[in-house]
Amino acid sequence: MTPLRGSLSAGTPIVGILGGTGDQGRGLGVRWARAGVEVILGSRDSGRGVRVAADLRQSEPGLSVRGGDNAAAASAGIVVVAVPYAGHRALLQEVAPRLAGKVVVDCVNPLHFDRTGAVPVAVPEGSAAEEAAAMLPDSRVVAAFHHLSATRLLRGSDPLDTDVLVVADDPDAAAEVAALADRLPGVRGLYCGPLRLAAQLEAMTAVLIGVNRMHGVSSGLRLTGVPRG
Amino acid sequence: MTPLRGSLSAGTPIVGILGGTGDQGRGLGVRWARAGVEVILGSRDSGRGVRVAADLRQSEPGLSVRGGDNAAAASAGIVVVAVPYAGHRALLQEVAPRLAGKVVVDCVNPLHFDRTGAVPVAVPEGSAAEEAAAMLPDSRVVAAFHHLSATRLLRGSDPLDTDVLVVADDPDAAAEVAALADRLPGVRGLYCGPLRLAAQLEAMTAVLIGVNRMHGVSSGLRLTGVPRG
Repeated sequence: MTPLRGSLSAGTPIVGILGGTGDQGRGLGVRWARAGVEVILGSRDSGRGVRVAADLRQSEPGLSVRGGDNAAAASAGIVVVAVPYAGHRALLQEVAPRLAGKVVVDCVNPLHFDRTGAVPVAVPEGSAAEEAAAMLPDSRVVAAFHHLSATRLLRGSDPLDTDVLVVADDPDAAAEVAALADRLPGVRGLYCGPLRLAAQLEAMTAVLIGVNRMHGVSSGLRLTGVPRG
Repeated sequence: MTPLRGSLSAGTPIVGILGGTGDQGRGLGVRWARAGVEVILGSRDSGRGVRVAADLRQSEPGLSVRGGDNAAAASAGIVVVAVPYAGHRALLQEVAPRLAGKVVVDCVNPLHFDRTGAVPVAVPEGSAAEEAAAMLPDSRVVAAFHHLSATRLLRGSDPLDTDVLVVADDPDAAAEVAALADRLPGVRGLYCGPLRLAAQLEAMTAVLIGVNRMHGVSSGLRLTGVPRG
């Protein structure tokens, strides 16, 4: 049976976050840094990346976070893609050569917002993660971290109480990302199946946003009946 | 703020289940009957509906369940649609007149199975539930109960430990269905938003099936960070 929890073979690599100064990227970055993972926050604007990281270190001295441009983030061992979907394709095109051979974690939710809430946007490849996989044939693309609300990530430091659902065609890459999720207090990484399920994970975010709006909360998601590995 | 839990205004109505002799329908029916809800299991074959209900009453005397054809189930106060997607449209066409004015709960998951697992089937209306809404303009269509594994429903009588995510354009109908979910031990019904989110709920089932296959479990789903109402 496939192990439920991942494991990092040789310590935790440095994590680079493309779009690391946005709410989602910054929220993930600060949570990982608090857990002792080294983080590079990337931004289109290098100065902004440096500044946001410095601000974080100032408010929490000793935090293992630095900043730079997206190319700097793309130089890390594991690279997380946390940009709005509108900028997804252009950014990946730009940094593709730096991502060869690496685990690339796509957590982009292609959503459109209207009066009634969020609704998934059709992606020709099926999902943002499959778009990334098509553009990065030399990378090991994993989809995960779709359902971690930026509000929740950035509000205080209480454990998150959520599972991170991980899909990928490469089980070893999925295990590395599940282990990276496990580093966050209150989070369990759970490998769910092939990358083609990324469309379902991305779209499910629209439901969580519906719940958040309707009930005034920042919801997370747990799968029940799956024993902890 | 919208109440988190639904409430049934005038006692629990009789629940009819279209496709009530299938695993999902029978599983839901027996769980509701154990909780004291009166249930009619409908089948294409009236004799089969009668027989399955009699078998259930024989193994659990006093169970408030009877059976008949789908028209008999469609005569109930709340009608649950639990047929394979392949038979969805034809069945609704057949019983449409009986469903006028009623709350109709669609829990159909349009999925295709191949070597790699489950994958959502494209539905022209967006989802099975929206197909039902288009075919039943005089009914109050609600989508819910997508993620209750038939295996789990039918195995023993332990509480289910899952949320039932409810979407509908009619908040009162959604509240009735959330209350019906609350009748099941271990289950919380949670209104998530408009019916157009049904596509995401239906498709998410493919992820749960992936988890079930990969980890040898029957998983459920909880939203965290949403206080009980």
